[in-house]
Amino acid sequence: MMIRRWRRSGDFLRSACKSLTSLRQKHNSMSPSVSGFVNRYESKGKTFESNAWNDHNRELDHHSCVGGNLWMMQQYKSFGSSSSSASKLQRNPLFSSLEPRDVSFFNEILGGEKYVVQDEERLETANTDWMHKYKGSSKLMLLPKTTEEVSQILKYCDSRSLAVVPQGGNTGLVGGSVPVFDEVIINVGLMNKVLSFDEVSGVLVCEAGCILENLATFLDPKGFVMPLDLGAKGSCHIGGNVSTNAGGLRLIRYGSLHGTVLGLEAVTANGNVLDMLGTLRKDNTGYDLKHLFIGSEGSLGIVTKVSILTQPKMSSVNLAFIACKDFLSCQKLLVEAKRNLGEILSAFEFLDNNSMDLVLNHLDGVRNPVSSSENFYILIETTGSGETYDREKLEAFLLKSLEQGLVSDGVIAQDINQASSFWRIREGITEALQKAGAFYKYDLSLPVEEIYNIVNDLRGRLGDLANVMGYGHLGDGLIEPYVYEWTSKHRGSISAEHGLGVMKANEIFYSKSPETVALMVSIKKLLDPKGILNPYKVLPHSFFSP
Amino acid sequence: MMIRRWRRSGDFLRSACKSLTSLRQKHNSMSPSVSGFVNRYESKGKTFESNAWNDHNRELDHHSCVGGNLWMMQQYKSFGSSSSSASKLQRNPLFSSLEPRDVSFFNEILGGEKYVVQDEERLETANTDWMHKYKGSSKLMLLPKTTEEVSQILKYCDSRSLAVVPQGGNTGLVGGSVPVFDEVIINVGLMNKVLSFDEVSGVLVCEAGCILENLATFLDPKGFVMPLDLGAKGSCHIGGNVSTNAGGLRLIRYGSLHGTVLGLEAVTANGNVLDMLGTLRKDNTGYDLKHLFIGSEGSLGIVTKVSILTQPKMSSVNLAFIACKDFLSCQKLLVEAKRNLGEILSAFEFLDNNSMDLVLNHLDGVRNPVSSSENFYILIETTGSGETYDREKLEAFLLKSLEQGLVSDGVIAQDINQASSFWRIREGITEALQKAGAFYKYDLSLPVEEIYNIVNDLRGRLGDLANVMGYGHLGDGLIEPYVYEWTSKHRGSISAEHGLGVMKANEIFYSKSPETVALMVSIKKLLDPKGILNPYKVLPHSFFSP
Repeated sequence: MMIRRWRRSGDFLRSACKSLTSLRQKHNSMSPSVSGFVNRYESKGKTFESNAWNDHNRELDHHSCVGGNLWMMQQYKSFGSSSSSASKLQRNPLFSSLEPRDVSFFNEILGGEKYVVQDEERLETANTDWMHKYKGSSKLMLLPKTTEEVSQILKYCDSRSLAVVPQGGNTGLVGGSVPVFDEVIINVGLMNKVLSFDEVSGVLVCEAGCILENLATFLDPKGFVMPLDLGAKGSCHIGGNVSTNAGGLRLIRYGSLHGTVLGLEAVTANGNVLDMLGTLRKDNTGYDLKHLFIGSEGSLGIVTKVSILTQPKMSSVNLAFIACKDFLSCQKLLVEAKRNLGEILSAFEFLDNNSMDLVLNHLDGVRNPVSSSENFYILIETTGSGETYDREKLEAFLLKSLEQGLVSDGVIAQDINQASSFWRIREGITEALQKAGAFYKYDLSLPVEEIYNIVNDLRGRLGDLANVMGYGHLGDGLIEPYVYEWTSKHRGSISAEHGLGVMKANEIFYSKSPETVALMVSIKKLLDPKGILNPYKVLPHSFFSP
Repeated sequence: MMIRRWRRSGDFLRSACKSLTSLRQKHNSMSPSVSGFVNRYESKGKTFESNAWNDHNRELDHHSCVGGNLWMMQQYKSFGSSSSSASKLQRNPLFSSLEPRDVSFFNEILGGEKYVVQDEERLETANTDWMHKYKGSSKLMLLPKTTEEVSQILKYCDSRSLAVVPQGGNTGLVGGSVPVFDEVIINVGLMNKVLSFDEVSGVLVCEAGCILENLATFLDPKGFVMPLDLGAKGSCHIGGNVSTNAGGLRLIRYGSLHGTVLGLEAVTANGNVLDMLGTLRKDNTGYDLKHLFIGSEGSLGIVTKVSILTQPKMSSVNLAFIACKDFLSCQKLLVEAKRNLGEILSAFEFLDNNSMDLVLNHLDGVRNPVSSSENFYILIETTGSGETYDREKLEAFLLKSLEQGLVSDGVIAQDINQASSFWRIREGITEALQKAGAFYKYDLSLPVEEIYNIVNDLRGRLGDLANVMGYGHLGDGLIEPYVYEWTSKHRGSISAEHGLGVMKANEIFYSKSPETVALMVSIKKLLDPKGILNPYKVLPHSFFSP
C-alpha cells in the first residue's frame, strides 16, 4: 500500500515540485505572534498575557516538552523561570539611569522623536520577547538609520555608562534581545537596505535589519536562495541571525553561518566601527575577527552590515513524510539518507507523536499525512538540479528503507499544497506550543545517538506532571545551541530548577572549560570595558558584577 | 571530433570512475621537496640551494608567474625578497637568547635528547621552508608528544621570554612555519594520533600532528573523506591546515575550515590549555573562540587537537579537462557549471597556457590532454552518488557549452590513469615552478571577474623580464588568502618591491581597516602579552617592537 502511495504521489510531483521551496517560504512564514519589530510596531494595540512572568509558580505544571532546533523542553502555563532567574539578578549599580538630557541628545543625533521611542505601548512590545517569557523595563528604544548613528549612540552610552540591548526581529528563544532591567533598546529594524548583490559569485551585502524572508524574496527572481531558513523568517533580521548564529533548516546542506557569512560590519561599545565586510570567500589576513561577532548575541558589538554567500536555487525539490516505529530506526534512516541521498539531502527533520498530537490539536486544518499513528515522524527534503533523477532516487531510497523495516509508512508530496502541509506540521510546532499555553523550552544539542534518551528520561521523571515532546533537525547530526553536557556527565542533575536555556549565562560551564570562559570574559572586557552591551547575558554575571 | 572524444571516453568511464578519488590521493601526493618534518628528518643529508636567500639581487629576473591557490606570481632565480624583507627586521631585543639551562630544562620535561633537537643538519631543515625562500637560525627544535608537554614548554618560554615558532609539516607558502631569527621551533609531528571517529556523524578527533593524507587513508575504508584536500597532503599536518585556514581543492564543495572544524584544543603563550573540543556541529554557548585560532598562524596559540566534520565518500567521480579560448569564457563556464552541475560540482580549477607549458617542460611524462594548444584550461570534477546520472549530466553540460562556444575542446577522463594525468598537470605546477628555478609567488584572492586582469597587467608591466602565469581554484568564486586590495584600489602600486605574500605582516592594511587591525593587536597582546608566539609574522611588527 505504501509503495502504491509513493508511486501515485510521484505521478503528480513532476509538475509541482519546482515551486515547493518558494511556496514553503511563503507559507508558514509568520504567525502574528512571531512578528518582528516593524510588524509589532504596526500592531501596537496588542497586549500580552502576563502570567508568563509569574515569579512564584516554580513547580512543574501540566506539560513540558522537548524539541526545538534540536531539542526544546517546554512547560505550559505560568512557569516563570525567566523572572525567577532574573529575580536573583541585581541591576548593575555602575550603570547610569536614563535622564532627560540623554533623550535630548538622542533626539538630536537621530533626527527627531520618530526615532527615539518613549511611547509606553511600543516599549511594552519591545521590552517583551515573543514567547512572553522575558520582560524588561526599558524606558527608551532608539531606531538608528545608519551605522554612523549606531556608532554615535554607543559612544555616548559608553561615556555615560548607559547599558544597551541590541534588538532585531526579537524572535530569539532565550531572551537575548529584550532588556533585563532598564537597558536602552537599540533596534536596527530601519537599517534594512540591500547594498549589493553579485550574480556571478552569489555574494549578498545588506544592512543588519533586513528581514530574512525579504532577502529570500529579493534573491528568488535572481535564482538564488539564502543559506539559512527559519520558521521565524518573516520577522527575524539577518543581523540577529548572525548575532545568534542561527542554524535553521538548511544547515545540513549549506553549513553554519561561520562558513557562509563572508564579512560583517560591527560597532563596538566605544563606537568604533569595525569594517570586516570582505566579500571574498577566503581571506586569511590577520585574525578572522568576524567570528567573534557570530553567535555572541550582541555582547561584543552591534552587527550593522552582513556579507553572505547565497546559493544557486535548485530547480528540483522533493519532500517525503515518513513514519518510524522507534528512535533507533530514525537514526539508522539518517545514516542511510546521508549515504544514499548524499548531495541532494537538504533537510532531515524529526518529531515524535506527542509533537504531532500537539499540532493536530491546536492548529486548524492540519492532518497527519500518514494514515496510521506512529511513534516518530521524519521529513526528508531533497534539493537538486535533476528533477526526474532526484525523485527516482528518493523513491528508491524510501522503498529500500521500507523493505529494511526502517520505515513503517510514508508519503511523497504530490503537489505544492501537500508539501506545504507537511512543512506546516514541523514548522507549526512552536506556534502550537504557544497556543497551548505557557511553556518551558530547551534548545539542546546532543550526539545523535543520545538525543531521544533525554526525552525518555524526562518522561520518567515528570510522569503526569508534564507532557514531554521531542522534535528538531536530526539531519544536522550533532547540532544546535546550548550544549548542556550534563546530558552525559551530569545526567542526575536534570531539573527544571536549573533554568537551562532560559537565563543560560550562568550555565556556560556545563559546556565550556573554565580556561575558555576566562578568555571569553577577557575578550568581553577588552571590547566592552564597562560591560554596557547586552549585560547579564551570555557570560556568567559574577564576572561583571562590581 | 570533440563530441566523439567525450562519447568514446564515456564508454570506459563507468568502470573506472569509482576509484578516481582514492587514486588522486595516492598519486601526486608528495614530491620529495614537499616533504614534511618527519620525511625531512629521514632525509637529513639533504642540502639546499642557498641562492634563494640572496639579499642583493632585487631586480626582476627571468620569470614571474601568477597562480597559486587562486593566484601566485612567481619569479625564477635568486630573488631574495624574503630576506630583503627580513633584513629590515630587527630581532626583538626583549626576547632572551637560548642558554644551556633552557636545554636542560627541556630535556627534563620532554624525556631526553631525542625530543630536544640540536643536530645541525636537522635544524638546517627545520629552519628552512620547503620553497627555500625563508631561513631562520634557530638552535633548538622541540618535539613534544602531548598537550601537557606543549603547555609546559610554552609556560617556561613565556616566563623566560624565549620566542617560539610552531611548526607542522612546514609546507606553508609564506614563511609562517620557520623561524625568522633564533626562535625555538616547536614541531608537533609526534602528536599524530587519531583519538576518535564517529561513523554516524562523521566527526573525527585527532592530534594536530596528523598528516592530512594519513587521515584520508584512515577514513577511506570507513567510507569518509576529509573536507579538505591539498597538493601538500602527503606532508602537511591537520594542525597546520587549521592554523593557516588552508583552502585547497574541496572548498567549493565543503566550505572553509571555519565551517568544518567543530572544535580545537589550543595552548596559549602562558601554557593555558584551551579545551574547545566540542564535537557538536552547532554550539552557541558564549563566544566561539576556536575561530581565533583558525588562520592565525600559531600567533595566538599552538593548536594541539582538532575535531573536524568529515564527509561521506561519494562513489561516483568524473573529471573533464577542457580548453577555453579566453578568460571570459572560463568565467561564464563557471557560472553555468554552478547552475547546471549544482550539487555534484566538486572542483573547478584553471590554468593558463604559460602554466601548461611550464608543466610540460619540467615534469616527465606529462602531455596536454587536448590536442590543440589553447589559451586556458579548466579541470571540472564532479562527485556524487549516482554514477550513470552524474556522467550523463557532465557530458550534457559539456556538449551544451561546446555548442554555446564557451569551450573549444575537451576530454572526459576515460580511466583512472587518465584522470590521474589530468590532476598531475594542475597539481604539478608548484613542483614544476620549483624545478624551473627560484620564483616569486603571490597567493591572491580576487572577485572572479577581476582575476585575469592582474595577469595581463603584469605581463604588460614586466614584458620580457618575467614569465607571468595564472592558475588556481576558480570554482571558489571569490577566494584565497592575502587579499591585496591594491588590485582594485591601488592598481598602480603593483610592484615586486612590495614583498606581498612574502613577509606580508606589514601589508595587512591593504585588506583590513585600521580599527580591525588595532583590535587584532589587542587580542594578540591579550593572549600573548610578551609576543613570544611566532613573532614578526601576521601583524605589523611596529605594534610589537619595543
